[in-house]
Amino acid sequence: MAGNSFGNLFKVTTFGESHGQAIGGVIDGCPAGLSLNFDEIQNELNRRKPGQSEIVTQRKEPDSVNFLSGIFDGKTTGTPIGFVIENANQKSKDYSHIKNVYRPSHADYTYDKKYGNRDYRGGGRSSARETASRVVAGAIAKQLLKNVEIHAFTSSVGDIFVDKPYQDLDFGAIESNIVRCPDPDKADAMISRIKEIRKQGDTIGGTVTCVMQNVPVGLGEPVFDKLHAELGKAMLSINAVKGFEYGSGFEGAKMKGTDHNDLFNKIGTTKTNLSGCVQGGISNGMDIYCRVAFKPVATIIQKQDALDNSGNIVEMQGKGRHDPCVVPRAVPIVEAMAALVLADYYLINKTSKI
Amino acid sequence: MAGNSFGNLFKVTTFGESHGQAIGGVIDGCPAGLSLNFDEIQNELNRRKPGQSEIVTQRKEPDSVNFLSGIFDGKTTGTPIGFVIENANQKSKDYSHIKNVYRPSHADYTYDKKYGNRDYRGGGRSSARETASRVVAGAIAKQLLKNVEIHAFTSSVGDIFVDKPYQDLDFGAIESNIVRCPDPDKADAMISRIKEIRKQGDTIGGTVTCVMQNVPVGLGEPVFDKLHAELGKAMLSINAVKGFEYGSGFEGAKMKGTDHNDLFNKIGTTKTNLSGCVQGGISNGMDIYCRVAFKPVATIIQKQDALDNSGNIVEMQGKGRHDPCVVPRAVPIVEAMAALVLADYYLINKTSKI
Amino acid sequence: MAGNSFGNLFKVTTFGESHGQAIGGVIDGCPAGLSLNFDEIQNELNRRKPGQSEIVTQRKEPDSVNFLSGIFDGKTTGTPIGFVIENANQKSKDYSHIKNVYRPSHADYTYDKKYGNRDYRGGGRSSARETASRVVAGAIAKQLLKNVEIHAFTSSVGDIFVDKPYQDLDFGAIESNIVRCPDPDKADAMISRIKEIRKQGDTIGGTVTCVMQNVPVGLGEPVFDKLHAELGKAMLSINAVKGFEYGSGFEGAKMKGTDHNDLFNKIGTTKTNLSGCVQGGISNGMDIYCRVAFKPVATIIQKQDALDNSGNIVEMQGKGRHDPCVVPRAVPIVEAMAALVLADYYLINKTSKI
Amino acid sequence: MAGNSFGNLFKVTTFGESHGQAIGGVIDGCPAGLSLNFDEIQNELNRRKPGQSEIVTQRKEPDSVNFLSGIFDGKTTGTPIGFVIENANQKSKDYSHIKNVYRPSHADYTYDKKYGNRDYRGGGRSSARETASRVVAGAIAKQLLKNVEIHAFTSSVGDIFVDKPYQDLDFGAIESNIVRCPDPDKADAMISRIKEIRKQGDTIGGTVTCVMQNVPVGLGEPVFDKLHAELGKAMLSINAVKGFEYGSGFEGAKMKGTDHNDLFNKIGTTKTNLSGCVQGGISNGMDIYCRVAFKPVATIIQKQDALDNSGNIVEMQGKGRHDPCVVPRAVPIVEAMAALVLADYYLINKTSKI
Repeated sequence: MAGNSFGNLFKVTTFGESHGQAIGGVIDGCPAGLSLNFDEIQNELNRRKPGQSEIVTQRKEPDSVNFLSGIFDGKTTGTPIGFVIENANQKSKDYSHIKNVYRPSHADYTYDKKYGNRDYRGGGRSSARETASRVVAGAIAKQLLKNVEIHAFTSSVGDIFVDKPYQDLDFGAIESNIVRCPDPDKADAMISRIKEIRKQGDTIGGTVTCVMQNVPVGLGEPVFDKLHAELGKAMLSINAVKGFEYGSGFEGAKMKGTDHNDLFNKIGTTKTNLSGCVQGGISNGMDIYCRVAFKPVATIIQKQDALDNSGNIVEMQGKGRHDPCVVPRAVPIVEAMAALVLADYYLINKTSKI
Repeated sequence: MAGNSFGNLFKVTTFGESHGQAIGGVIDGCPAGLSLNFDEIQNELNRRKPGQSEIVTQRKEPDSVNFLSGIFDGKTTGTPIGFVIENANQKSKDYSHIKNVYRPSHADYTYDKKYGNRDYRGGGRSSARETASRVVAGAIAKQLLKNVEIHAFTSSVGDIFVDKPYQDLDFGAIESNIVRCPDPDKADAMISRIKEIRKQGDTIGGTVTCVMQNVPVGLGEPVFDKLHAELGKAMLSINAVKGFEYGSGFEGAKMKGTDHNDLFNKIGTTKTNLSGCVQGGISNGMDIYCRVAFKPVATIIQKQDALDNSGNIVEMQGKGRHDPCVVPRAVPIVEAMAALVLADYYLINKTSKI
Repeated sequence: MAGNSFGNLFKVTTFGESHGQAIGGVIDGCPAGLSLNFDEIQNELNRRKPGQSEIVTQRKEPDSVNFLSGIFDGKTTGTPIGFVIENANQKSKDYSHIKNVYRPSHADYTYDKKYGNRDYRGGGRSSARETASRVVAGAIAKQLLKNVEIHAFTSSVGDIFVDKPYQDLDFGAIESNIVRCPDPDKADAMISRIKEIRKQGDTIGGTVTCVMQNVPVGLGEPVFDKLHAELGKAMLSINAVKGFEYGSGFEGAKMKGTDHNDLFNKIGTTKTNLSGCVQGGISNGMDIYCRVAFKPVATIIQKQDALDNSGNIVEMQGKGRHDPCVVPRAVPIVEAMAALVLADYYLINKTSKI
Repeated sequence: MAGNSFGNLFKVTTFGESHGQAIGGVIDGCPAGLSLNFDEIQNELNRRKPGQSEIVTQRKEPDSVNFLSGIFDGKTTGTPIGFVIENANQKSKDYSHIKNVYRPSHADYTYDKKYGNRDYRGGGRSSARETASRVVAGAIAKQLLKNVEIHAFTSSVGDIFVDKPYQDLDFGAIESNIVRCPDPDKADAMISRIKEIRKQGDTIGGTVTCVMQNVPVGLGEPVFDKLHAELGKAMLSINAVKGFEYGSGFEGAKMKGTDHNDLFNKIGTTKTNLSGCVQGGISNGMDIYCRVAFKPVATIIQKQDALDNSGNIVEMQGKGRHDPCVVPRAVPIVEAMAALVLADYYLINKTSKI
């Protein structure tokens, strides 16, 4: 209810503030008997972690995860998987200047109004550092879904867009560049753009596209828990996300039915895939794809006006080590959230028929 | 879990198929002591009902709601509010031709694969008829939120877009035309467009914009249950929705932080509102606005190929009485879903502080 | 959250007051493809209904259930099963004398304090009439659990106790007498006792024992949702229940470990069954048995003092048609609640292992 | 769903096995602004911890809790409170002898059947060590409920019963003896009895009575989530519990209505309290009391037959350091569970009326 859990049968609850002792979580409902590949879990964390390249924040965090329970002889036991990630490199003094100040387009003001008592250091609970716990849970969800392939990638930075359909992209190339864009030319342009933005002390938005393949037929729970509705919520819950679309999305809203309908092949697949392969909220077994919009990071390294808690407008300047563009590090987070939804719905679907 | 409930503290569970005896639902958790205005509830149903104008389906349904419980002396008692809406005008024979056929871009195929046993008449449970129950629950949620104003309107049909910002529109004009667009010129163009599309036996998509005003500060539960994430799920769960954005949305993903940040006024309001007035998942008290994309209705009155359950491609043609554009009737549904989210989060927020 | 739903995957939500238009409910999460035997469902309702014998209330209610959705061609479709039971024989004028009066040991006072607005007629929502909806849901749960046998019976009325172990009783004899006790001599004594109590205008308590056989191994979710904990909650939620014990129960609390431990047979069964065959909250495949204590009905047909809502002590006398002993009619309710727990946990257990 | 969470708005999720690295949990939904008294929390843990007296297990565990999040400047922030308790003194070799053996009346067999992969050391997840996490959460719940008083005490060991009504006992004396019984004579007898049992290498059962005072009127959610039903579930979820009764309990089932009804005083209190002061599932503001039955601990230090996982009966003898009677250490656990229920229902009740 208080918003720190995600999922129904495969459920993760996270805790922790950016500059507290540790962040972590509990994964409840992971079926027993799953052999875990711990290197793959750490690898997902490494894809998300700060300091990984010159276009992300230069803060250094090892982000190594310590599993405390729920695993025996390398396999899950069906009991809750508790885990912690130490906050190794917090520099809380970086934040003393915002103790009484609400930064524009941050959650300082709203947390203060809602809760009264707020850990202001590094954004506290509202920091995107929390997403490391999601990545841990998502990495386990991916291993549960062993035949499903989930590929997210950067599909735009500012006004630089990948314009090829995802079918024409080589997902193997996503990790070949630091912006995580499988179109090499666009990747170069995006990287240049982010470097330029960083030099200006500014930030820039972008989009991540996520493609889910080999998803079993039948995942998704009508009416309110449609697969794409839950995917949408999952993505919109990631820090800085402003929009979500799947299949034809907003473009589809301009179209006519005769152009939009996906005609069937004899084997139940469809000739086109404008629906994103979810109908009535239920997967049809073909590729599910969606696009997620991230706003530019609110922390800029330029002077701007802020509000203090006495009602004064004060000038402030972002300190600390921030991302000029959140999108490259968001790619594994988007994948993690997709995996969490699919794992949960995969388990729920086990009881759809007698 | 099976997807027919929405909300946490203010929770609605719906039931019913398009051509069964009745649809209905149970609203659990509505606080006691709320005086209900039944005319307003019926009025919301009338805004959604078929046959209301020449640009929607000509099917006639009175859609009158019968409350069975939870109300005494005209006020809620805190016990569950059960209600039913008879299915008065179903013509089940209209659907015998699709008993063994999966219509393209409908949920026939996925329901069949997921459940095995399917009420094919009129789409059964996947029919948008279910949304009448949402409208009932939403109408009560609106009455609970008596100071909050929720206005949805048609913001595009096909490629005809309202291009004024919502602040320049007169919400009082929304109900003055049958397409529910507060921009009179655009309304006329949209109506013409829909008539033309209907004549072609085709359908067309569109978008609905929803503006929520006077929302209290502090609604929304970080981390996973951010206000906009729950709004997104709510909207994406409506039939035919393909996308959701709030605040700057997908446009925001092209912007720079220096342009996107909303600077504060001294009283806590902001000079701009690109954030959609949700920060960290929590409302800041200003206007929340979002946009919802609807695909064109899949049922077209033209011949097209479908798949039967023996694996044959068969030619079929939509019969029955269908909407050429779902958007005008979707306006009250979008409002209902917004109200359900806000009512639920309003109640949850009562426990945020000691 | 507001307390009108039970279960997780197999979930029932009930609504309705004793003297409203109808009671009913929604069963969500029943797997698709279950062929329903409607006669068996009605038969369970008949076992619960008033007027069935001379030792229960003489109120007459047909209690016939009308299913509105979720069933097609006689089988469940996986969509929610909505149902209503009309309140045919309410005599609301019977209750005008308690409009402003709190009857002793009824819920009048607490509902009034909690909600402010209360349907006082016949106890409103707090009436045991609500349990008819549980019986409907439980009857479907029983059909889902087709190999499981659930037998409840009256094990005591006042100080008349069945003193044989359940293994020595013939469950086939339960329905052979109106008090639903499989021990014929005790049954006669109980019936005489209840008739005598009724003549006095008094009421009397009793216990119901429930035995669940052929329950699969592995049902139950540690730590908080142990099978017996959920059974306990299920039973304690029935009107008038004051206690629950399973296996050795309160007697076990007097014993030594050497006497209480159930030693294994080679095939995994146990030589004794003091544990009630739930260990660590998980069923071991043998008989589960429990005992439920019902207080005497609070409505007596004698003069007694009550409190009015102005703070005066007023004399009142129960009118209407009430049960002198609730236990005979509680037997099918106990079975229904047991079935709801087992059906839910049966579905949940489908995801315990990969 | 997987059973490791308790509560709705005030919700604790626990993790950890007896001999893993640590146990711990996450408390979600604790309102912001609560000043925590950490000494009181540790004090509750000390009341539960092993090695505290000569009548409990001599295992030594410091059981000191480390809070990782959700607290700032000594006060709760409304964000999740993550905590860990190291397993400092596990001696896993003590358990190598049960790797392939199912001990009688333990959860070894059922966990193995349910999950396949089991941490057998010290009972793993089924160990009562898990209850330390409940005590942490309960201690915080108690601080939230600052006017409510919750007193549990040992009301029987074997056949030695406290026979005074709780009103005649001095709760201040509970902690004055190691068995936690406020009746000094009975306390001495109980202690002697436990010492004797321990000498025999045997164990013995007992009961704990819990009295909740100054509980606000109106807590409890009819129909399924009645206050006493949730209390019952809470207690039955504690290791070794076999029964729960409140108010008149099983004795009440022998009584007549004329004797059982609690007549009102003019101010809304009642002359007697056989109902346990919950009517219709809702608290009436007077004392709530209940009794919880604990079976004798299954681990005895005598030879007994067990079953190995190859289907052989093998002789085994309990090793390690075990409790001869669980009841003295169960007292703070019963209080913790009571506090968790009341805190949760206290928050839920904030939305019962407009």
